[in-house]
Amino acid sequence: MRILGIDPGLRRTGFGVIDVQGSRLQYIASGVILVPTDQPLAQRLKVILDNIRQVVQETSPTVSALEKVFVNTNPTSTLLLGQARGAAMCALADQGLLVHEYTALQIKKSVVGNGHAAKEQVQTMVKHLLHLNGLPAADPADALACAICHAHIGPLADKLVQTAGLTAKRGLRLRAGRLTG
Amino acid sequence: MRILGIDPGLRRTGFGVIDVQGSRLQYIASGVILVPTDQPLAQRLKVILDNIRQVVQETSPTVSALEKVFVNTNPTSTLLLGQARGAAMCALADQGLLVHEYTALQIKKSVVGNGHAAKEQVQTMVKHLLHLNGLPAADPADALACAICHAHIGPLADKLVQTAGLTAKRGLRLRAGRLTG
Repeated sequence: MRILGIDPGLRRTGFGVIDVQGSRLQYIASGVILVPTDQPLAQRLKVILDNIRQVVQETSPTVSALEKVFVNTNPTSTLLLGQARGAAMCALADQGLLVHEYTALQIKKSVVGNGHAAKEQVQTMVKHLLHLNGLPAADPADALACAICHAHIGPLADKLVQTAGLTAKRGLRLRAGRLTG
Repeated sequence: MRILGIDPGLRRTGFGVIDVQGSRLQYIASGVILVPTDQPLAQRLKVILDNIRQVVQETSPTVSALEKVFVNTNPTSTLLLGQARGAAMCALADQGLLVHEYTALQIKKSVVGNGHAAKEQVQTMVKHLLHLNGLPAADPADALACAICHAHIGPLADKLVQTAGLTAKRGLRLRAGRLTG
């Protein structure tokens, strides 16, 4: 399983790719898409679309994981972030990838063991779990953390989905990765 | 000039295409993209992306106009709408179209003459301005109204853009169609 993690944003969209074999995680690539701020919104979204497309084509992930956006108290920011997120999801789905979604809480809990961990703790744990030589920058670290979260939770979520046929009939809603959105 | 107007939404995305020759408007096509509500978000956004792509390929617009979303008081709704809007903008920009944005107020003012007109008034004026036989449904009517708004305001906005080089240096911000976002 090769996972592409994305941390969407209208100024900076982080991405990170890892391989998973059993419990072994291997770093493949990571980076940040810097979105020009002086262009019309549609052009900015197209930068996200085009660049994620390129990352997918160059790294051939088999699945993707996206950080669920924290809903901001500022509606205008929420709308802008939603649009960036929509562009990222479109790019992934358009390349035929399933998109799993995880909240920041799920990601931090899965990577650091504490849902309220600081950004630096996430960077440190990503470095440790992927045996990196240096500390990854904040945006790629968040994207890699999202991919690691799917590596940890994804197989469990898949199992839950298999039993969902039964539980769904009883009106239960599973909250695992695959069933969100 | 052939204008594609879009009224984005995560359940229903309206579209409408008109031709403009001088002050003459001609109806070309309109409809609504019904987005399945029982699929994961990424798949729903892909439905918007794919269908707008198809509309563009079948009707060959030269420019596009999008309704600016009213920022909702419910942050979750705002985020969902933002994502639908991001998908629509991506689809348009990805097909090489410039995307002009207009608020509902601008659209209603331009089409009905009253920024606070009721939905039915918009439908009636769209029918009248485009010489339609019947009243268009609400979603296509909103999309067609958005296209009509660009037909009315667009050329003016283009003129403003030409002078923007001067005004921008003095720190002014134009609010016409092309300069939003």
